[in-house]
Amino acid sequence: MPVNFQPADPASLLPIDGVRLGIAEAGIRKANRKDLTVVLLDEGACVGAVFTSNRFCAAPVQLCREHLQADVGTRAFVINTGNANAGTGDDGYSRALATCVALARRLDLSPQQVLPFSTGVIMEPLPLDRLVAGLPAAIADAHASHWGRAAQAIMTTDTVPKAASATVQLGGREVSITGISKGAGMIRPNMATMLGFMATDAAIAPALLQPLAQRLADASFNRITIDGDTSTNDSFVLVATHRAGNPVVDALDSPDGRALLAALEQVSLTLAHAIVRDGEGATKFITVQVEGGRDAAECQLVAYAIAHSPLVKTAFFASDPNLGRILAAVGYAGIADLDPSRISLHLDDVRVAVHGGRDPAYQEADGQRVMKQAEILVRVGLGRGDATDTVWTCDLSHDYVSINADYRS
Amino acid sequence: MPVNFQPADPASLLPIDGVRLGIAEAGIRKANRKDLTVVLLDEGACVGAVFTSNRFCAAPVQLCREHLQADVGTRAFVINTGNANAGTGDDGYSRALATCVALARRLDLSPQQVLPFSTGVIMEPLPLDRLVAGLPAAIADAHASHWGRAAQAIMTTDTVPKAASATVQLGGREVSITGISKGAGMIRPNMATMLGFMATDAAIAPALLQPLAQRLADASFNRITIDGDTSTNDSFVLVATHRAGNPVVDALDSPDGRALLAALEQVSLTLAHAIVRDGEGATKFITVQVEGGRDAAECQLVAYAIAHSPLVKTAFFASDPNLGRILAAVGYAGIADLDPSRISLHLDDVRVAVHGGRDPAYQEADGQRVMKQAEILVRVGLGRGDATDTVWTCDLSHDYVSINADYRS
Repeated sequence: MPVNFQPADPASLLPIDGVRLGIAEAGIRKANRKDLTVVLLDEGACVGAVFTSNRFCAAPVQLCREHLQADVGTRAFVINTGNANAGTGDDGYSRALATCVALARRLDLSPQQVLPFSTGVIMEPLPLDRLVAGLPAAIADAHASHWGRAAQAIMTTDTVPKAASATVQLGGREVSITGISKGAGMIRPNMATMLGFMATDAAIAPALLQPLAQRLADASFNRITIDGDTSTNDSFVLVATHRAGNPVVDALDSPDGRALLAALEQVSLTLAHAIVRDGEGATKFITVQVEGGRDAAECQLVAYAIAHSPLVKTAFFASDPNLGRILAAVGYAGIADLDPSRISLHLDDVRVAVHGGRDPAYQEADGQRVMKQAEILVRVGLGRGDATDTVWTCDLSHDYVSINADYRS
Repeated sequence: MPVNFQPADPASLLPIDGVRLGIAEAGIRKANRKDLTVVLLDEGACVGAVFTSNRFCAAPVQLCREHLQADVGTRAFVINTGNANAGTGDDGYSRALATCVALARRLDLSPQQVLPFSTGVIMEPLPLDRLVAGLPAAIADAHASHWGRAAQAIMTTDTVPKAASATVQLGGREVSITGISKGAGMIRPNMATMLGFMATDAAIAPALLQPLAQRLADASFNRITIDGDTSTNDSFVLVATHRAGNPVVDALDSPDGRALLAALEQVSLTLAHAIVRDGEGATKFITVQVEGGRDAAECQLVAYAIAHSPLVKTAFFASDPNLGRILAAVGYAGIADLDPSRISLHLDDVRVAVHGGRDPAYQEADGQRVMKQAEILVRVGLGRGDATDTVWTCDLSHDYVSINADYRS
């Protein structure tokens, strides 16, 4: 069960004018499983996208990059679960391309107007025939109201579908935003989510889409970790369909730009947090906030050292305030000239350590009380400057081991 | 149960002339537990030592460094389990120093001739009174034949004592080497072992001890990982008592130097591997060998990415040849210009991947056969050069989570 996350009522998800989603059962890995999604974009939509930094990126990620570079406009996504088409070499590339060709032919598009996405087991051949055979049913299913069905169809080890909507007023017009994401393991930036798709009907200058996608990812999907394993397939795409009739947003530092960014961030952060809340085996949602750094980069380094430590994560699982493990992680995070005597540590409102040692006033009962909560704020002060950074993670439980020991069976 | 590791018969451990070890029950954390060890060195012994790179190093590590810098000779170690005296600030430093003062007074030494070592829970005050009260019994117990008792007394979550001996002929004289180590979790370099002590009766030029200790650590304790958590207390000390009557070894590239190094490495590697074999919850002993790198550093980067990946480690636990996870870890290890199409992967003698994709001849049954073994060699080819590096690790099992969720209870 995810930590404090209720899946959105599908009826509450806002359709985005210009975007239709259709799903089908293609039998990619298992029978009777919705595993194929197509997203159809009307002409005039613009996209920005961010992909995995893994050098071993999957074939569909390679193709996405190439198709976006061709700059002929994006009109469709084809998304499958059950198979990542990663670690599959030239043959995997050919199969991903064949997928785009097959969908393009049915929609009368060029293959470069199609972006492919795959998620699932690595290093197994994509069952191309079954995937292509499923396309007609997915296309026939396409409808603007199917965001909830798509959120369901892109799941792998996720226990709940992840979707969110928001609205914002821009120049007197109501603009809608809806997004979906999936991912529960092999999660760490960059990118952090296996797959995330967001769309808005706002009119946004095309040149803004890419920086906007990067900025949203950096503040949400690229600030979460479950197990520190950067996936081969991570992809996040932002679509703007320009249908809302608002004055075109052409700068993020304008009043409309700031309002739009805030609304988009609300959705992207909800989707990113949902991935952590539904992290494989997660029983706790943990915010790691590091303050007092010289720059945000070193704060992030410390935050990730804490968020990745198996010892810290098992202590959270056990609700055991064995908090010296957090100090140890701060110590090995990689800040060469760190002065331990300036470090402080809070757990929610409880000051645990000060001047690098246990706070004399700290009572274990107070630490215990916070550790038992389902949501915990870890706050580390470095005492070196004014920078801060935040990362979200979950605990490491028996179920994480079970899920990943049994993933393919 | 450790993976293919039988504790040495205590009677087989060679006494080292000039070194006596005594243990006692001081009740540091639990009653009726041998938790205090003193090691007494006769005059003339030389030591080299390597300590944790964790900036949050424990008070005893700080004191060890200071006492070695004072260069007044080392005559005794005092080692406690049950409490790491780390994250304890100035008060922790005072207590570690008081420990040295107390032992020095009883042995008629200066406090700087004593090196303190602590291992156990972090961020709790060291029970100084109980420790000091235990010293007379430990001193009274001191004997050259007590290496096995000491190996037992320094254990924390270790399930077996770790000790090894070797002999080597130097200039017609037989030289003896004996070492002990402890550690099962919070294990990754540098240093990798919580505590390791080795002694030889060889005559070695004093200036050689420190480079020798560093070299031994780099090839053994600094090449293992269990959970990627660098401890606050890691310490490795090499003692030479100069009693064997061999011609003084004054260069490692002499015939005697090479013979000595090989014999020392045999012991240090046995002790380091024993830590992995007895890793918390370990069911597999895994050698990760990365070849074809531009330099050893990038090979090590890739080897550790594999050795730390929770997904790779849970796949080993499950004996599941879900080997794409290894390729994914290679991809995110941090080599920016890595060419995935040159990567190959072997599991023992089975070629799994070639040119960055699944080997067409690879049969899952072959991968399955190797994955079921208790000892597995993972061999990655980077196709970039001639450098190689090797790291040893274990799998991630339910028991790791259980042990670390319940450590303090």
